[in-house]
Order: sequence, then structure tokens, then C-alpha cells
Amino acid sequence: MKKHNFFAGPAILPQAVLMKAAEAVNDFEGMGLSLLEISHRSPQFVDVLDRAVASAKKLLNVPDTHEVLFLTGGASSQFFMSAMNYLGSTQTAGYINTGSWSTKAIKEAKAYGTVIELASSKDKNFNYLPKGFDIPSDLRYLHYTSNNTIYGTQYASPPVSDVPYICDMSSDIFSRPVDVSKYMMIYAGAQKNMGPAGTTLVIVNKEELGKVDRQIPTMLDYNTHIAKNSSFNTPPVFPIYVSMLTMEWVLEQGGVEAMAKKNEAKAALLYNEIDRNPLFEGTVAVEDRSLMNICFLLKDNAREAEFIELAGQAGCVGIKGHRSVGGFRASTYNAMSEEGIQTLVNVMKNFEEKYG
Amino acid sequence: MKKHNFFAGPAILPQAVLMKAAEAVNDFEGMGLSLLEISHRSPQFVDVLDRAVASAKKLLNVPDTHEVLFLTGGASSQFFMSAMNYLGSTQTAGYINTGSWSTKAIKEAKAYGTVIELASSKDKNFNYLPKGFDIPSDLRYLHYTSNNTIYGTQYASPPVSDVPYICDMSSDIFSRPVDVSKYMMIYAGAQKNMGPAGTTLVIVNKEELGKVDRQIPTMLDYNTHIAKNSSFNTPPVFPIYVSMLTMEWVLEQGGVEAMAKKNEAKAALLYNEIDRNPLFEGTVAVEDRSLMNICFLLKDNAREAEFIELAGQAGCVGIKGHRSVGGFRASTYNAMSEEGIQTLVNVMKNFEEKYG
Repeated sequence: MKKHNFFAGPAILPQAVLMKAAEAVNDFEGMGLSLLEISHRSPQFVDVLDRAVASAKKLLNVPDTHEVLFLTGGASSQFFMSAMNYLGSTQTAGYINTGSWSTKAIKEAKAYGTVIELASSKDKNFNYLPKGFDIPSDLRYLHYTSNNTIYGTQYASPPVSDVPYICDMSSDIFSRPVDVSKYMMIYAGAQKNMGPAGTTLVIVNKEELGKVDRQIPTMLDYNTHIAKNSSFNTPPVFPIYVSMLTMEWVLEQGGVEAMAKKNEAKAALLYNEIDRNPLFEGTVAVEDRSLMNICFLLKDNAREAEFIELAGQAGCVGIKGHRSVGGFRASTYNAMSEEGIQTLVNVMKNFEEKYG
Repeated sequence: MKKHNFFAGPAILPQAVLMKAAEAVNDFEGMGLSLLEISHRSPQFVDVLDRAVASAKKLLNVPDTHEVLFLTGGASSQFFMSAMNYLGSTQTAGYINTGSWSTKAIKEAKAYGTVIELASSKDKNFNYLPKGFDIPSDLRYLHYTSNNTIYGTQYASPPVSDVPYICDMSSDIFSRPVDVSKYMMIYAGAQKNMGPAGTTLVIVNKEELGKVDRQIPTMLDYNTHIAKNSSFNTPPVFPIYVSMLTMEWVLEQGGVEAMAKKNEAKAALLYNEIDRNPLFEGTVAVEDRSLMNICFLLKDNAREAEFIELAGQAGCVGIKGHRSVGGFRASTYNAMSEEGIQTLVNVMKNFEEKYG
């Protein structure tokens, strides 16, 4: 039976990508060697890295002011690296707190300059995005999390401000168009919409680097990786290769504009059922609902285990909600098919027939 | 034709490991899902991580005072993280400079305390290991590189000292037994003897942590990763899985004792030919020769390209020397077969028949 993978991350990847990835582990491009055992300085891998950078630039229309890097350490390392590289010790940055990830970003940035939490939705367990707060115009940058994987909120558009953004896009990168010119920096762990765990996409505004008043370890300085095209040291070869395949797959599908349309249609299918079906309810303020991580509850939560069991029998795996929210979470990243969503919707309809 | 992979890193992995790795990319343990798309919190991956830690502990007989971590960022990140976590700002550490990697480790450590370069072999392009120098007994630690991948030197045994060691074992980890109790810390990028690029083995003495006088970003603090069993954030799932398979393969082969015997025999085969064949010569002081990276020259270097060509025709790839040394470098890690070495030796013998 075909599995429909709703895990929040590491998450579903396109089947065509997985097949090519397995092939490369056996024999990479007819070299008679596995991709895992060739030099990162070989022309074959240099080509992979070049194609990965080119695809990211093409997908997001990255301007010449910015550079695309493939680093390691996850988005969690960018929480401190972003401030270490961009926030001078006498400068102030503004942060919007929309959940666990922003909370961690705020904590780590405080070591480097003045950090203001401009707004927070903690009062309601982060089930909405804060609105109507003041954003000072003299901030060094405004940090926000575009999509909160755990609570299922997503910015439909960036917060209104002329301050350059730094944004954690780990769970919605390449799911829709982004105007990169407005960002001092964008970062995203690969393991949602971009590839397997093990690499982190970092897009930096080069012109704003090198301005802070501190010594930065070589490996933590974005300029190191810009100068060496993400190969100052041995890069994570396989995660970058699979990310490259996934980005090329998105391009083949019509790019991020086409993805955005599909993602909207898929999310609508599931949210419509959540709103229609009397047994279920969504957990997030309607206007802030994520198109990537759809969180919902059974009004009678005693039946949660049975619903997960029935979903599993239909091939839907990974729908148990995060412990901070409970209930269910269906992650509907780029590679999730409409068929997968429809299968889950059918399980919900059957559940209604049984208990409605 | 079978390829014999002499690349210095990313490097040869056992064929059985590569086959299992490719299988896991297609379908992991009959889950109907790829290993690349399952949660790092799933029981299946938690088991992989547990097995990886257990194998490393078993292979090196790691005492209870120490913990085994799988991090990212390569050995290059450990150059500064080791000092950041272990060297107080008023303390002094001693470093032995045996090449590019030690040079970088020294540079990065200087930001955190007093760093003394106790000895260096730079005067002879790092073609030997320094001897006969004084090691103060009050150093916080003594840092050395057990095997220099570029220049082809290797410590047959650690420098004689009662000071706890910190050691970069990137290119000879699991190639022979190590008395871990004498080390404050051991680190090794995976991509030589342990697995593919993308994870770094770090073995830390827990009892010596938490003693420095500085704030450490959460992701750079070894205690973070000890507390969360290397899963504070999403770990590099696939590189850890393949490393686990490789470590289990070493155990099946008889462990590091058996590996050491095989590695000695393989290296002897090649060094004997280098010393016997009048066309070739080794580049390293005989007593400091590496069993992992065997560097040698053609006395008539005008024939280098032809030798590489002939080796390639026999299936031997990756033998071009590093630009800092020239000539040839045959990397003879755990997974390299005696057959591979013999094939290269035969090419050398044929070359002698032609030009000797």
C-alpha cells in the first residue's frame, strides 16, 4: 500500500528524487563509485554544488547583492550565527515571538546586542500571529519565523515594515515566492521542503556583512563560506545532492509560483474538511493558518488513538500532533500529493459516518 | 572493471555498507518510507543513533567518564569548539603543529586562552613529526593531529606526556586501538574511516566540561548535545546511519585490533614497493609514515601524468597527490582491500619494467 507521509520533518520528498538518490549511493553518474566516496573537490561534486546554488537562485530570484550558502548545524545554529554576523554590540534587533523556534532565536541573539521582543502570541499557546504592534524604524533587522512547524501558523505575507528582515523559513522555503531583496538573511534547515536532514540553506546579504565589532571563529563567519563557495571544509555531500535534486524537481514542476498554487489547493482541501466535519476543529486563528502544517483536534479527544490507527490503515503516517498542541498535525509540504490529502480527508469522513 | 578508490576523503566505504545505504534510501526497514523522510524522533531512527553510539563505545572501549556525540560542522568546527568548551581564558594549552589542520586548530584556539605552539615541522614541509621538545606539565591540554591526511605523517603512539590530550583523529579513527581515558577529547570528521561527509564524531570527557568562564551559544556547548543524546536539533540522519553501518562493519571484521593488523599489512605492501622500486621514493621520514595516507613521488616527475593514467586504466582512482606535496597519495583506509593495494603495486612494477 502506498504510504502518505505527513511527518513534520525530516519529511516527505518526491519519489523521483528518492530513486535518483538511491542510485547515486550505488553508482554516481556511471563513475563506478558511490557519491558517498568521492572527493568534494571532484568536478562531479563541484557541479552538484554549482547546480544547487543556481537552482536556489533561480527559484527565489536571488539578487546579486545576496549569496546562497549550504552550511551545517541546522536552523538552530543560525539562531546565534545570524546575530553574531549581523548585530553589532551597540545595535538593536527586533524579534517577533511566534513559538519555540523564535523563542530560541531570541535567547541566542541576546549574547550579541540589544534584542527586543516586539510582540508575542505566547498568551494563547502561539495559536495566532501577533498584529498591531509598533516596529521601530531604526532596528538593525526584524527577525520572524515565516511558518511555525509546531503550532501551525504561517505569515501570508511578511510583517509590514521597511526594516530588513531576517527570517527562519525552515518549514516553508520554496513553497511560494519570496522577495529576497527585502531580507538581510534567510535561513532554512533542509529537512522539510528542501531535502534530507544535514544541510541548511542560508541566503545572506553580502553588503551587510563584515560590519560587526567582534572576532568570529572562521567556520561561523559567513564571509568564509562565501569566499569558498560553501567548500571551506568538506560540505555534507549527500544532503546537498538530494537538496539539489529536490530544487530541480520544484523547477520542473513550474517553480515556486506553481508550488504555491498547489499548496493552497491542498491546504484548502483539508481545512475545508476540518471546518465542515462536526467531529473536528482547527487549532489556529483562521487568518494565520499554515499551508504547510495543518493542526487540528477531535472534539472528543478520547478517540484520538483510534483516528490515528484508522489513518494508518489508509496509509497516512506521521499525523500525531506535537506534544505542545496535541491532536493531529498533517504536514503538507511540496512533495505531498493531493491524493495523500484526499486519503486523509476520506478517513475523516468515514470517522464522521461512524461517530457523527 | 572494479574501481579501487584511493581518494583522501570523502573516501572509500565498504561495499556492503553502500548497498544497505542505497536500500535505506529506497525503503527503510520495510517501513514503506525512505530513511530520508522519517522523523528523527521515530523509534527507528532513535535506534540508529543508539546503535551508532554503542558501536563507537565498543570499538574504542570508551570509559564512563566520556560521552560519544555525533555533531555537524566537520573537524573544522571542533578547532574552535574544543578550546571554547575546555580552555579557560587564563589557562594555557599546548599544540603540536604537524600541518595544515594543526595550524588551523592553533589559529582558532587563540581566541579563548593562551596557546603555545610547542613544536612544528613546518621547516621541512611537515614531512616528519617533531620530537625531543619540552611539554610543560601544567597545560590544560595537549592538542595534536594523530594522522596528517595531506602530508602523510602519523603518530605510531601519542606524544609522551601526562597532560590530557585533545586529538584530531579525522583520518585514522577506528583504524587502531586508542586509550580514550588519556584524552580530554577526540574528534573526527566522518568522511575518512567512519562514513560519508556530514557528521563529526566527538568524544568528550564530561567531567572536564562546564569549567570555562564564558557564555557559549547553546549549539556550541557539548553539554547541550550530551543532555539530548545528539538530538537537541535534527541530527544529520543519513550520514549518521551510514556511519553506524560502517562502525558495525568494523566490529564484524574483528574490531579495531583486527583493522590495525590489516592496515599495517596493507601499508607495508605499498611502502615496500616504494622503497624497492628504483623509480619511486617516499616523501615522509620513515619512522613517521602514515598507514592511512601514503605519499610518494616519481623521481622523474615528468612521468607523473602517465603514471596516473596507467593507474586509472587498472582501476586505481584518486591517487593524485595533494598540491602541497605533489606526486601521489594513496589513501588506504579501513575499507581499502589488499587487492586494491596489490593492483597499484603492480602498476608500479609495470612502470619499472617500462622505464627502469
